[in-house]
Amino acid sequence: MNSLVKWGVGLLVLFSVLLNLALIVSYSRRTPQCASRSKHEPRGKHDERSHVFADLSRDEYTQVQEYMLRQKDLNISTRQSTRPDENFLFLIDLRVPRKSEILEYLDARGPVPHRKATVVVFYGTKGYIKEYEVGPLPNPSSHRDVTRERYGVDLPLSARTVTIGEYILIFQFLEKNVFLPLSSLLYESFGLDEEHKANAFEQMPRGIRAGERKTWISFFRDLSGMYIQPVGFEVLVDHLSTNTSQWRVERVLYNGQYFPSVDALQDAYSAGTVKKIVKAPWEDYGSLKPRTRPLQVGPQLVSPEGARYSVSHNHVLYMDWSFAFGLSSLTGMRVFDVRFRNERILYELSVQEAMSVYGSVTPGLGMTKFLDSSIGIGRFAHELVRGVDCPYDATYVDTYRYIDVSRPLRSRNSICIFELYLGQPLRRHFADFFHNSYGGMANSALIFRTITAIGNYDYMWDFIFYQTGAVEAKVHATGYISSSFLVQGSLKHGHQVAPNVLGNVHTHFISFKVDLDIAGGKNMFQTKDMEYKNVSLPWMPEHHAMIPHLVEKTLLTEQEAALRHGTKIPRYLHIASNQTNRWGHSRSYRLQVYSFAGDHLPESQPEERAMSWARYKVSITKHKDQEQTSSSLYSQNNIWSPAVDFSTFIQDNESIHNQDLVAWVTAGFLHIPHSEDIPNTVTVGNGGGVLLRPHNYFDNDPSIDSPDSVYLGPGTESSCESNRMACLAQESCAPGLEPFTYHGFESVMNFKEE
Amino acid sequence: MNSLVKWGVGLLVLFSVLLNLALIVSYSRRTPQCASRSKHEPRGKHDERSHVFADLSRDEYTQVQEYMLRQKDLNISTRQSTRPDENFLFLIDLRVPRKSEILEYLDARGPVPHRKATVVVFYGTKGYIKEYEVGPLPNPSSHRDVTRERYGVDLPLSARTVTIGEYILIFQFLEKNVFLPLSSLLYESFGLDEEHKANAFEQMPRGIRAGERKTWISFFRDLSGMYIQPVGFEVLVDHLSTNTSQWRVERVLYNGQYFPSVDALQDAYSAGTVKKIVKAPWEDYGSLKPRTRPLQVGPQLVSPEGARYSVSHNHVLYMDWSFAFGLSSLTGMRVFDVRFRNERILYELSVQEAMSVYGSVTPGLGMTKFLDSSIGIGRFAHELVRGVDCPYDATYVDTYRYIDVSRPLRSRNSICIFELYLGQPLRRHFADFFHNSYGGMANSALIFRTITAIGNYDYMWDFIFYQTGAVEAKVHATGYISSSFLVQGSLKHGHQVAPNVLGNVHTHFISFKVDLDIAGGKNMFQTKDMEYKNVSLPWMPEHHAMIPHLVEKTLLTEQEAALRHGTKIPRYLHIASNQTNRWGHSRSYRLQVYSFAGDHLPESQPEERAMSWARYKVSITKHKDQEQTSSSLYSQNNIWSPAVDFSTFIQDNESIHNQDLVAWVTAGFLHIPHSEDIPNTVTVGNGGGVLLRPHNYFDNDPSIDSPDSVYLGPGTESSCESNRMACLAQESCAPGLEPFTYHGFESVMNFKEE
Repeated sequence: MNSLVKWGVGLLVLFSVLLNLALIVSYSRRTPQCASRSKHEPRGKHDERSHVFADLSRDEYTQVQEYMLRQKDLNISTRQSTRPDENFLFLIDLRVPRKSEILEYLDARGPVPHRKATVVVFYGTKGYIKEYEVGPLPNPSSHRDVTRERYGVDLPLSARTVTIGEYILIFQFLEKNVFLPLSSLLYESFGLDEEHKANAFEQMPRGIRAGERKTWISFFRDLSGMYIQPVGFEVLVDHLSTNTSQWRVERVLYNGQYFPSVDALQDAYSAGTVKKIVKAPWEDYGSLKPRTRPLQVGPQLVSPEGARYSVSHNHVLYMDWSFAFGLSSLTGMRVFDVRFRNERILYELSVQEAMSVYGSVTPGLGMTKFLDSSIGIGRFAHELVRGVDCPYDATYVDTYRYIDVSRPLRSRNSICIFELYLGQPLRRHFADFFHNSYGGMANSALIFRTITAIGNYDYMWDFIFYQTGAVEAKVHATGYISSSFLVQGSLKHGHQVAPNVLGNVHTHFISFKVDLDIAGGKNMFQTKDMEYKNVSLPWMPEHHAMIPHLVEKTLLTEQEAALRHGTKIPRYLHIASNQTNRWGHSRSYRLQVYSFAGDHLPESQPEERAMSWARYKVSITKHKDQEQTSSSLYSQNNIWSPAVDFSTFIQDNESIHNQDLVAWVTAGFLHIPHSEDIPNTVTVGNGGGVLLRPHNYFDNDPSIDSPDSVYLGPGTESSCESNRMACLAQESCAPGLEPFTYHGFESVMNFKEE
Repeated sequence: MNSLVKWGVGLLVLFSVLLNLALIVSYSRRTPQCASRSKHEPRGKHDERSHVFADLSRDEYTQVQEYMLRQKDLNISTRQSTRPDENFLFLIDLRVPRKSEILEYLDARGPVPHRKATVVVFYGTKGYIKEYEVGPLPNPSSHRDVTRERYGVDLPLSARTVTIGEYILIFQFLEKNVFLPLSSLLYESFGLDEEHKANAFEQMPRGIRAGERKTWISFFRDLSGMYIQPVGFEVLVDHLSTNTSQWRVERVLYNGQYFPSVDALQDAYSAGTVKKIVKAPWEDYGSLKPRTRPLQVGPQLVSPEGARYSVSHNHVLYMDWSFAFGLSSLTGMRVFDVRFRNERILYELSVQEAMSVYGSVTPGLGMTKFLDSSIGIGRFAHELVRGVDCPYDATYVDTYRYIDVSRPLRSRNSICIFELYLGQPLRRHFADFFHNSYGGMANSALIFRTITAIGNYDYMWDFIFYQTGAVEAKVHATGYISSSFLVQGSLKHGHQVAPNVLGNVHTHFISFKVDLDIAGGKNMFQTKDMEYKNVSLPWMPEHHAMIPHLVEKTLLTEQEAALRHGTKIPRYLHIASNQTNRWGHSRSYRLQVYSFAGDHLPESQPEERAMSWARYKVSITKHKDQEQTSSSLYSQNNIWSPAVDFSTFIQDNESIHNQDLVAWVTAGFLHIPHSEDIPNTVTVGNGGGVLLRPHNYFDNDPSIDSPDSVYLGPGTESSCESNRMACLAQESCAPGLEPFTYHGFESVMNFKEE
């Protein structure tokens, strides 16, 4: 072998080995991953000014807490187990600056509004509640009592939410005054012992008139889904006093029979004059554990070329959309300054309240009217589970809050943001006649979601941003129903759904605040509908026919525009501008409400004023800083004399013509529980919402400009030129998925002192 | 170098090269494809007996056509251009056997029902229409006139659909009697010339009383989306006679002015006594061609482990579901023998009719009441576009039909079937208190879809099968609106949407047939709702409160159960069985109707009887073989004396207690067109439907048994044991996509003789 050959062989070996190495390295990353980041920059730019809407950060909460603790004269405690007779720092939350200030800042280069917090203190030592404005952030230096400014009244201590501190005492009270004295009865009746515990579920409101704090507490087997495990035992506890020694059991209900006290029940039970319940084996029918082995995984959503939206801090960009977002501990999810093509459509879209009224022959659920924002809706936004609560590769955002805690709480991945392919065309037309062609576009929209597990129910909140310029606010209910033990007369209020369990009839009403700003702030409220009119036909005047006509109206005052459930409401409702589109029509957004609501509580009832927003399917008011929310933190526990009564917003009957308008929308559904609500109510069919649709707002459908548009003509069926789908098969790659993680159990309610 | 070293080097080179080759070959299949087929066999088995519901095959159509042609005495033509004065074989369609026969076959091992076809012949030589039953298939040997048996009346020839043969003559008539004499007027007014053509769009019904066939034909610029390109010129043509020499232009409308004839218009135009339209450049604002280059592809649906459903012939299996399907040329999509866990829920779910009533000051649209099944809904099911009309990797099914053609037509990929991840949980609960845990399940459902482009509108039809046992029938409208040229008074009927174009107000009403068979054929109709009742509280009898009660009713007759739009309808509607669930409640399915319908045409109008199904949101009738469809092929063109008047189904007011029941459901929406309807109406918000939900049918929610269930507890967050999602990231692979193809333009309407 000469040296040339040797060199040749050597080079070949070297090349071959290197090629091997290269191939092995390449091949070890054997699945080409799809781009995890956008290939293209988003159209718009993130706006740092959206920070005015941002929830308080962990540091900010801590600063406010520390500031309040420094005010020694206020004598505030922040211990988790603070007792009702102490002063408790219950809530710290962002105080959103006034709309006028923010618009001045955003639209007219005005100064940055001061960042402030709302602080709620329950003054056990004084018998009242105070709300403070604390600021400026960071490093707050002052606080101001704004209670009367905001509510016009003082807030009695009895209006407060039951805190963890009070629950700890209630549980102790029950242990000592109920469980201990009745232990053998409870064992014989329900099987309660050391290993078989009962949990308490309270029903609200707490009493029948202002100033009361008397709660019917029902007991449930400590199994999965305790809400559908009632044992037929309820007690009415008066816990008004901040001095627990004055707490009393006022009534006891056992198997449908009432007793004035625990002793009276025990005596009658011993005497054999009580119709007894005999313990039966516990059946864990509420379990959500899989009963079948997983087989094939179902269809998944993937973004082969990465996300087409961008989230920076609390600001989102998606196609033509941009918006800021937040999550109030009390009212929940909200977005602000929602723009399409940089023009503001909505100043605010937010959840306000979730209300339910129950029917039952038993006292707990029979009196129950839940007003969830009084315990906090956003507070219960726990971690969302990848691939179940949201698509696997959604963007997950952490939130922080300070409500009934001793330090700020992080709730990881409690908001998800994703683009959803809805599985249908947004628009399409196949031209069969004359001009054969096909044009269409898949419907992909951005979804902004939280799910809040408020006790038994899990509400799924969605704000959806479509490429047509439409925005939708939707809510679905899932989780467990509330139930009661089946007694004589129960079936007048529902259906049996499990052994001795009644699923009680109830309503769901949800309040949304829809602060549309159409082409600037001065808007009006228009309605449109159709009407048949008998007209003579122009080409044969002797012949008449009923022809559909368009009927348009402008409603001028708040009372005209308060559209009650059950009345004939015009089919099209519009927030409209004086500005016109290219064809001379008022630019507007239409509100299309999806609702299957039951009957609203009659106004004769003293509790109704705390939920008077639910009288109206849609109500339009003039925007006022004083009319910030349709409900309040104090509605549940002072339901008879609520700090906010929505109906007063429209009592002054102000003009809504050429004003800054707010639409208050009520959606909901009547729920008559049935066996398929066991173990969980399903989302399918159990929801409502409102679709906000452009109507003569643009000069044509803006989605026509979307890069998702597809067009085919005879001869160009396989061309990728105007049909991205024609190339998809050659380009497909594997979705680069993040590993699965879950931390939701880190932020659960904790009844023990930390 | 000794030979050992040589051997060593040689082996190394050989090994290295072989390894290279192996790696290159491996790497060339570089993206591991997801399984394209199911890893697991479907739970159920395909049922070949579903063939009784199968549409006719290409061979069967041909056999029937050939059989009819052999009946020389009938003197039938099958030429595409058959003239109205000849006898035309218009339609061949499956005659679904009687329900009793089929149930006997499916449930009681009865004989296979004879396979038969319905044949419709337009007898131009005789002045009537005949329907025949031809069978048995294959190789039909007999035919039977069933016209009176089915309709109780003879069908006049004027009730016939306008065929391609008649259209060819109408176009010739217009060319000779309108376009030629008016050519300079049409050029000066609208720019019509050799290169700029106008297309005709007819408006219906054709006249104002029975026996008439006078059609207002409006003209539109031959641009994309001609339906929104009106030129302000309409003619009323009497084409009743089968002798075209007797056809006449009865009226002419030009720019809002009426003339008794073409000559009269020409004379007035020449004399300068006409308010002229002056031609303007044509603007192709209706084009659906993308106006932006595609960027990133949007989110896509993939099935990493293959489809979880199976389609065999006309039978589908999906999780616990099975059903048979078909596509009627006339009424469109339908499914039969829909079973969940092998128990029949629905005997039939089908589209019946799509109706629209328009308002306009112009005569064409002003009189228009479209009844689409008279031209054929299923007929216009063209090929669906991958990734736009349905998810890219859906299963696509070809259909065949014979309607107004000279030989059977294949419409490739005109049905799609896919499992859709809806981007939300079907159910979930996060347990915050006491028992921390999370249980949930993603909502994936099977969708069965066609889209029918009937002239201007494209209706998207979806039947959705949920893992909860619920079935949904939904329709969305997209495509082009119908429009009219803007003249004095137009704005009473809509909004301007383009230059001189009015988008006319109109209603959409859709009729669905919902033949539920709940736990066998004997059912009843129940309603449920709530009602507040003032009751004394048992533990404080002096105090009263309004408490929600459940109100249940059983409606006993067809007239009681005919629930009119605009009346107070109970919120829950149920088809219920005498059978009870584990808790003693009637097993039932609830019908939840989603509808935004406008006003139905007043009953005073002579056209109303042909659409009398639209009076009712829901109407329950006893099943009868004679009451097969709520509308008919003959409704549009003999609207004043319709072959089927749905209101007669309930006139006999039969008992609906313990009977085989059919629910007729009307969904729809009022459409007030706006600028965003240009170029196309979008699907978002423009739809309606009905959700059929189990209600005390099962003993609990059947989705609890789904392999998609997910469960997490503290400590098992990362376990794949009961959470398939926790393993997804390690398993992800690239979707194996089929190449993109499209053949939809092969099956378009053809106005030329082949």
